[in-house]
Amino acid sequence: MRRRSESGPVARQRRFAVVMAGGVGSRYWPWSRESRPKQMLALAAQRSMVAETVARLRGVVAPQNILVVTNRRLVSAIAAELPELPRGSILGEPAGRNTAPCIGWATLEVMHRCPDAVVAVLPADHVIGPRREFCRDLLAGFEVADRSRLLVTFGIRPTAPATGYGYLRAGRVLAGHCAARHVGAFVEKPSLALAKRYIDSGRYFWNSGMFAWRADVLWRELGEHLPGLARSLKAMERTRKPEGRGRIARSDLDRVYPRLESISIDYGVLERSRNVAMLPAGFSWSDIGSWEATAELWPLDSAGNASRDPLLAVDSKRNVVATGGKRVALLGVNDLVIVDAGDVLLVCPRGRCQEVRSIVGRLAERGWKGLQ
Amino acid sequence: MRRRSESGPVARQRRFAVVMAGGVGSRYWPWSRESRPKQMLALAAQRSMVAETVARLRGVVAPQNILVVTNRRLVSAIAAELPELPRGSILGEPAGRNTAPCIGWATLEVMHRCPDAVVAVLPADHVIGPRREFCRDLLAGFEVADRSRLLVTFGIRPTAPATGYGYLRAGRVLAGHCAARHVGAFVEKPSLALAKRYIDSGRYFWNSGMFAWRADVLWRELGEHLPGLARSLKAMERTRKPEGRGRIARSDLDRVYPRLESISIDYGVLERSRNVAMLPAGFSWSDIGSWEATAELWPLDSAGNASRDPLLAVDSKRNVVATGGKRVALLGVNDLVIVDAGDVLLVCPRGRCQEVRSIVGRLAERGWKGLQ
Repeated sequence: MRRRSESGPVARQRRFAVVMAGGVGSRYWPWSRESRPKQMLALAAQRSMVAETVARLRGVVAPQNILVVTNRRLVSAIAAELPELPRGSILGEPAGRNTAPCIGWATLEVMHRCPDAVVAVLPADHVIGPRREFCRDLLAGFEVADRSRLLVTFGIRPTAPATGYGYLRAGRVLAGHCAARHVGAFVEKPSLALAKRYIDSGRYFWNSGMFAWRADVLWRELGEHLPGLARSLKAMERTRKPEGRGRIARSDLDRVYPRLESISIDYGVLERSRNVAMLPAGFSWSDIGSWEATAELWPLDSAGNASRDPLLAVDSKRNVVATGGKRVALLGVNDLVIVDAGDVLLVCPRGRCQEVRSIVGRLAERGWKGLQ
Repeated sequence: MRRRSESGPVARQRRFAVVMAGGVGSRYWPWSRESRPKQMLALAAQRSMVAETVARLRGVVAPQNILVVTNRRLVSAIAAELPELPRGSILGEPAGRNTAPCIGWATLEVMHRCPDAVVAVLPADHVIGPRREFCRDLLAGFEVADRSRLLVTFGIRPTAPATGYGYLRAGRVLAGHCAARHVGAFVEKPSLALAKRYIDSGRYFWNSGMFAWRADVLWRELGEHLPGLARSLKAMERTRKPEGRGRIARSDLDRVYPRLESISIDYGVLERSRNVAMLPAGFSWSDIGSWEATAELWPLDSAGNASRDPLLAVDSKRNVVATGGKRVALLGVNDLVIVDAGDVLLVCPRGRCQEVRSIVGRLAERGWKGLQ
């Protein structure tokens, strides 16, 4: 039943996607809660970000070939967001262990269904557009990954010297593989000066955290660079029914998963591997890491106030307002973030959005229950 | 049936109060609305300000001797706030014409009930305390007004060089009348420099807008200084039933009232009369003219944030927060006023509270209905 095509597009049956939806997203508090993290919010569109992420795959990856990994408490809520997916395709982690265990487990599930699958790995909380560009790049990623047998990362041409993203240095061209390049180096979040030099050089791309690879290639690389993790994951397999869509026993998951090494796929595999390629993306991308970033997504008034809510702004500039539809009157205030979550209100300067998570840490000591 | 006592306290039956509750209070938007102006809000206590004002009179003025003047649209709402008052004691103006017509009409009503009444005139939206001091001063005001046959104003010893209040310059002592003084001059809202000089001199008091006088004295002064107004008011009387608590016909009210001269009692009578005395008040007083003033009323946290609502303030100082009980998290913001009215949210700097009324003026052009 193997339908490998050594050249040309990857057959539809072999295309899989793993959507990583395990984030807690405390920087979007008070909209985001433990029970309703960022990927559940409709920050960029009318639908939740995870629903957008899955909808974006339409026509490229069949619904039955999409797996979503999230934490176990969110499985029902995520399933409700994704009625087109079989319930068995929502994998619930008993504990969050960063991306390497998550991707490792999902890869096992994919290989169980299709041993020669090619897999796209996609975070559930990124903003991407336009969809046509994304689909074209995704198909190219599948093809490059299948033919090159490399780990393919999607690189984003930087639009600003961002210091909150990791960067990829593009290496030599991967001959015959679309616009793909080898990866010269992974770089952690740089200083502003360094980020500016990266941009000026034209050789650096943002690391989007989106990948494409053959499942067997990823599994081999995981075994090479994180052998303990690969062994532990494989051990979970022992109770899987040999045929059909049998699932790993929950007891095995509970026994093994919480003790897996907590490590990212970037640090654990990609940065250690010599078999990494980068495909420059033609789509726009943002991980919208804080409330301030939503200013790029939402309508701006003539004074630069960003909001999807009815706003009356008098002598007020560059504010970001999120109230879920409630009216807001601003008089003489600038550069604020104002978020109404119904049961709690947040006001902070745009420049301090990153610290919102520190508020979440103080809720318990303040005795505010039910707002985490 | 006249029970005039030329010396000593005024008999209880002769003591009346007129509570002026006609204000629109747009500076307390968005809590205040046309249908729920400042005097209807519970800004300083659990009860509305008008209910507080009436409750403050307990033991000094009998409920059946209290009249409340408001605009006609608010009569039912005000009556609901004041169940102890006979419904006929809530006078509804067909149009707001400032304080002189309001007081003139109420004085006619009082004289109809008790020709030798002594009347306290009290705005419904001031914060006053403690009640014991207030009652003592009010009784003294009745007594001075009755014996001296002067128009008695209550003067407040200034606690700061406020530029938002009018001032009274104290003249010579009114011999034999408690601590009462003649009034040397009325002064409109002064500059800051002038206000400081007033305070340093020790001779200036804030004009509280609270008064006591014999009804017949006020009526005589009104006839002298605003004869047209007095004539028009008297003309409304023609349909009043001669006996009992007959009321002026609504048709007469509608015909006469909207065309009355719109003028304040201060400007129209007190500043023109030579028969004015001032009684220095022993109670504390504020007209809480804007959201910022509530900072003086509400609990302060250690960083000077004023609120009655649950507040989590991180690195945030001197904010004024009013949400009606909703939780608020502040991070790195100072000197803001944040008001949640449920259907609309307001954020402005403390220093620009006075401009909130300009927002109200823009609601219609913004197409926001139901928020005026």
